[in-house]
Amino acid sequence: MHRPIQPVLLCGGAGTRLWPASRGARAKQFLDLVGGDSLFRRTLKRAADGAFLPPLVICGAEHVALVRAQAEGFDPKLLVEPVARNTAGAIALAVAAAGPDTLLLVMPSDHIVEDVSAFRQAVARAQMLARDDWIVTFGITPDRPETGFGYIASGAALGDAGFAVERFVEKPPRAKAEAMLAAGGYSWNAGIFLFRAGAMRDAMREHCPAIYLAAEAAFAAASESPHAIYADGPSFAAAPSDSIDYAVLEKHARVAVVPVSMGWSDLGSWEAVHALARCDETGNACDGELFAHESRGCLVRAPGKRVSLVGMEDVAVIVDGDDILVMPLARSQDVRAAAKACG
Amino acid sequence: MHRPIQPVLLCGGAGTRLWPASRGARAKQFLDLVGGDSLFRRTLKRAADGAFLPPLVICGAEHVALVRAQAEGFDPKLLVEPVARNTAGAIALAVAAAGPDTLLLVMPSDHIVEDVSAFRQAVARAQMLARDDWIVTFGITPDRPETGFGYIASGAALGDAGFAVERFVEKPPRAKAEAMLAAGGYSWNAGIFLFRAGAMRDAMREHCPAIYLAAEAAFAAASESPHAIYADGPSFAAAPSDSIDYAVLEKHARVAVVPVSMGWSDLGSWEAVHALARCDETGNACDGELFAHESRGCLVRAPGKRVSLVGMEDVAVIVDGDDILVMPLARSQDVRAAAKACG
Repeated sequence: MHRPIQPVLLCGGAGTRLWPASRGARAKQFLDLVGGDSLFRRTLKRAADGAFLPPLVICGAEHVALVRAQAEGFDPKLLVEPVARNTAGAIALAVAAAGPDTLLLVMPSDHIVEDVSAFRQAVARAQMLARDDWIVTFGITPDRPETGFGYIASGAALGDAGFAVERFVEKPPRAKAEAMLAAGGYSWNAGIFLFRAGAMRDAMREHCPAIYLAAEAAFAAASESPHAIYADGPSFAAAPSDSIDYAVLEKHARVAVVPVSMGWSDLGSWEAVHALARCDETGNACDGELFAHESRGCLVRAPGKRVSLVGMEDVAVIVDGDDILVMPLARSQDVRAAAKACG
Repeated sequence: MHRPIQPVLLCGGAGTRLWPASRGARAKQFLDLVGGDSLFRRTLKRAADGAFLPPLVICGAEHVALVRAQAEGFDPKLLVEPVARNTAGAIALAVAAAGPDTLLLVMPSDHIVEDVSAFRQAVARAQMLARDDWIVTFGITPDRPETGFGYIASGAALGDAGFAVERFVEKPPRAKAEAMLAAGGYSWNAGIFLFRAGAMRDAMREHCPAIYLAAEAAFAAASESPHAIYADGPSFAAAPSDSIDYAVLEKHARVAVVPVSMGWSDLGSWEAVHALARCDETGNACDGELFAHESRGCLVRAPGKRVSLVGMEDVAVIVDGDDILVMPLARSQDVRAAAKACG
């Protein structure tokens, strides 16, 4: 039986860890963070395989115009979440909108994948498992003892395609991350999935029925404009907010992991952006004009401005409108404090 | 014989060490750096003693409008230098413009004096020496082994008023500065002077005749507008450029120093500005809006902007138009590199 692949781009994130560049209507996925294109548009390109169906984009109402503008040439379907209900809510909407035998390839729209060919090959491997009703998560092969991600422990091999998931590991302390890296058989949970819509529907009905039923009702009562399908607000608002990991994956018996090494980054902090940015010979990366005097390892994002650094090392200077953020790159996780205070 | 005191405000400086706030037409003396008023206007207030004549301001042509605007209520005379010829050139112009028996009280217009009463008392003491044709320099009583200033060694006492200058000491290395501070009898050369115009004219004719004759000719051929007297360009351009210290004081026999402790600062760097700024309990000082998270000892100058500091210590963030300067306060002297590169 033919099982078409439908890419589903989750585009509802706010990305406050990249404040002040990312905020409000101009969320992280719509920014050009590493040169060339916005993360959303890069994701559209990645999802534009001739063998795939046109993508479905799930986003908030405030982003419809920007999604339409940035998606020029890709012609995606837009499905609007009336409120944010985390990844389980968004995926439930996509499942409700899809035929049961469609394979949904779910991906965040604010990540970077440098090796698209490795990604496509992993999808091809995962397809065999998804056809067999495994919910497949793509596990990123770790290259460092990262404490900011969840990990997936691989269990029994499923042919050449991947492994049954033995268990999920929450963001670990440093020592545990180092132990997992040394042991092998662990990968990072990147939030990229492939599954048959019908298999996920059944899993949701079992593990998180309130979410699925709310999404199903919201889609049934959706209204349509020329630009997007708008899920029904009151119906969808009844759904509890939960991540797909907690709501389904950690409870479900038939979850597989397909390990992949594809130059992936979630660009989850200014430090991560600096790690992927094109740097000069002193390790400085700049969007805008930079004068650096005895300064190295800095990330400057100040379009239309000129930043002068004198004797600075490993700091971020991020300018957006009237907001200027200055912090050591190593403190990138603490940007939330400023984002919360300054909005 | 009556010897009126004529304040002379030297207002021709550029102040590039406070780049980017200080540059071009908006030089350091016209900035409000410590709250309240511009440094120039504070200097006008300091020079507005009932016993003094109205002040003479010596400035460049590009600053006439700003001087007029900031001097509102003080009604100074303006004497415009067609080109900059350092302090000796500016003082020679003031001497050429004054009657020989006028006492000229020369002062930079970009310094801070917190104790104006101590300043006035020092001028009263200096007056006795100046009437006796001493060229008097006011010596700032040092409170730290500063390596950024020249020092004055006091010689024989001249009654209760001051001392004959034994010698001038160039900006010293740290060890020498510490030795002078420990020994006593040294003061900082702050560039504030009192002398009889005729005495300085005679000294200049002896030590730097080319400067004085050029200034005299430039004043004789000056043109007058309702706003200012413009010294003649070609005549003044013939003057060599030199500081009054090199051109006269270090060569002249009859130079006195009147020590004074008056809360003086030349605000010669962003570090010096931070030292005088009103700081909050964590040592941060801000002109503009500041959100500081685990940050201390920082100087922020960003009028109309909002600066967020996360985990930063002892840095300056200076915003002016499209220019943003970030540097450790301890590197303040190196701002010239940026000023030179960015203008």
